[in-house]
Amino acid sequence: MRGYTMEKDDYLKRLRRIEGQVRGIQRMIDEDAYCIDVLTQISAITKAISSVGIGLLEEHVNHCVMEAARNGDDEAAREKVAEATRAIERLVRS
Amino acid sequence: MRGYTMEKDDYLKRLRRIEGQVRGIQRMIDEDAYCIDVLTQISAITKAISSVGIGLLEEHVNHCVMEAARNGDDEAAREKVAEATRAIERLVRS
Amino acid sequence: MRGYTMEKDDYLKRLRRIEGQVRGIQRMIDEDAYCIDVLTQISAITKAISSVGIGLLEEHVNHCVMEAARNGDDEAAREKVAEATRAIERLVRS
Amino acid sequence: MRGYTMEKDDYLKRLRRIEGQVRGIQRMIDEDAYCIDVLTQISAITKAISSVGIGLLEEHVNHCVMEAARNGDDEAAREKVAEATRAIERLVRS
Repeated sequence: MRGYTMEKDDYLKRLRRIEGQVRGIQRMIDEDAYCIDVLTQISAITKAISSVGIGLLEEHVNHCVMEAARNGDDEAAREKVAEATRAIERLVRS
Repeated sequence: MRGYTMEKDDYLKRLRRIEGQVRGIQRMIDEDAYCIDVLTQISAITKAISSVGIGLLEEHVNHCVMEAARNGDDEAAREKVAEATRAIERLVRS
Repeated sequence: MRGYTMEKDDYLKRLRRIEGQVRGIQRMIDEDAYCIDVLTQISAITKAISSVGIGLLEEHVNHCVMEAARNGDDEAAREKVAEATRAIERLVRS
Repeated sequence: MRGYTMEKDDYLKRLRRIEGQVRGIQRMIDEDAYCIDVLTQISAITKAISSVGIGLLEEHVNHCVMEAARNGDDEAAREKVAEATRAIERLVRS
């Protein structure tokens, strides 16, 4: 079981909506839509997908990382935090 | 005709791949994949979609914006640049 | 002369303010301020400095890039646009 | 005492270097440096300052957030994680 398991349906719903937005951009390009309008849609997708990422991250820290801390395993907890930090870094730089 | 018309097929191919990546994340969540692995995929999508945006932007400036400049319509050119700048700002902040 | 020359004073004023904000963070850390408050300040600086970047970019396109287009030098104009695009890419990824 | 206390000197040194980089940009603008070179420097600063932020965040989670978890105070821990998550969101969007 993962930290996000309880909200799985919500995440799947959001991702299906993002999938639809990506298809929407294909349609826009296929119909020669105005570049700036395509870019506005791209920013919306980037925001939506990074929100999913931030939500997953929060659940991850609340569950996987905290569990290590609760078990008193400091070494494991620090390692989990370091791993999550690298994921944040990739998110910030992407 | 838009600036990106000549590379339309390339953009559509990249967007179909991104669409597939979004579906891949749904599958990962559905199968309770490890959060950090999902986050890594999310960063990859964000990078891929913002690359599409940056590519479209370059074509847009090369065509729509430059055309105004070539026509000697400075006012129109400045307006186009301002519009593109706001799109860049949304991209940077998303 | 550069595209930003006319607004030089404005840019210098904004950069001096950002410099002051960076010193402010040093003070906060020196006085053991709460991490989250430091992070809020860091986001404010990132926003302020990227706004300066986006402003410079707009002037750059309006002047240096457009000039090449006005001179009818399409090759030079495309090269300038490609150079500016790579700068945007670095900004988006930083 | 804060999570970053032990590495305070390192953070202060990095921030002084960033302060110097911001002054460097002022000098570049004052001497009419080429826009793209200024932008390259701006991206370097954005990267350096967000790295400081990510480092502080890691220490914050390792100390303040974990402490709540170790004390068995789940409510407090979740609140701390939510607070840190909002800080990450501001960082990603800035």
